[in-house]
Amino acid sequence: MGYGRPVITEHELREAREYAAERLADTGIVLTDAERDAIEVADFGLSRLEECGLQLLVYVNTDRYCGKELVLRPRQTCPEHRHPPFDGTPGKEETFRCRAGLVFLYVDGEPTASRACMPPPGVYTAAHEVELRPGMQHTIAPGTLHWFQAGPEGAVVSEFSTASRDELDEFTDPAVTRETVLG
Amino acid sequence: MGYGRPVITEHELREAREYAAERLADTGIVLTDAERDAIEVADFGLSRLEECGLQLLVYVNTDRYCGKELVLRPRQTCPEHRHPPFDGTPGKEETFRCRAGLVFLYVDGEPTASRACMPPPGVYTAAHEVELRPGMQHTIAPGTLHWFQAGPEGAVVSEFSTASRDELDEFTDPAVTRETVLG
Repeated sequence: MGYGRPVITEHELREAREYAAERLADTGIVLTDAERDAIEVADFGLSRLEECGLQLLVYVNTDRYCGKELVLRPRQTCPEHRHPPFDGTPGKEETFRCRAGLVFLYVDGEPTASRACMPPPGVYTAAHEVELRPGMQHTIAPGTLHWFQAGPEGAVVSEFSTASRDELDEFTDPAVTRETVLG
Repeated sequence: MGYGRPVITEHELREAREYAAERLADTGIVLTDAERDAIEVADFGLSRLEECGLQLLVYVNTDRYCGKELVLRPRQTCPEHRHPPFDGTPGKEETFRCRAGLVFLYVDGEPTASRACMPPPGVYTAAHEVELRPGMQHTIAPGTLHWFQAGPEGAVVSEFSTASRDELDEFTDPAVTRETVLG
């Protein structure tokens, strides 16, 4: 079933990396060749990459702070998760800033009455919608459940945060795992 | 003499902000109107803004991490300084990533034999050169003396870091102060 392990093919990986590199270039973001080859593709162990997945480029991730770019295909969803406390810290605090396209972020809180997105199959509970267009940003406190979906043209999102430890992420849906395919 | 206090004029401030907003737009970086009005202009108390100065936009600065854009005019210099320990932390650790133009960073360490930049009048000691073209980045450990100068076409630099407390910066030149003009 592919649960619990990434089952992305080499072809899907290459295609997802090329897509992400092109969207970043369209946004005016210059990458080195080594960075283009290091774009991470997460399928969350679901084998439905176009629907549930994320392309990431980590610029820097020290034990104190992290900077990344996230790239989403049209309507692609990053499944619901939270960042738990670790190493005596409250856990990851992160700011998403939309650079291009459109992204809908769903966080714990008062459910938004009429929401722009339907989640894909899986377990989703957060229903407070934050719409981020280019130049808009939102900060997520540690421990807050959240998921996000790109609009019809995909999205490029810069993430500023404390140290990132993706392997600690706690997903609402037990079928989801955070194994990153590095190729 | 202007030492110890910023003596930028309203006209200089407006012009510097407009310059920075244009360079950010050229780089594909979308700002809100409120952000354009919040671009900080630092003259370091020297009243020689075109030569020694910095334009900054802070996206986020929590007590744990910070994200900013820095904009430099052609050959404009940010004077030599270090980020000291505070509040039980080792002090600010920061990563500069060049987005557009060219920036020469000078840090503590083995002096580079033939350097691309002359510092402006003032006190400068760090002479290890790191050239950053678009897509290149460099991380500066807390406490490291550093200064930087843009190339002939100016520069746009993204900064990822721990919490930023500019008012704590320690400048090598006692004539320099870090009062930011907010307009």
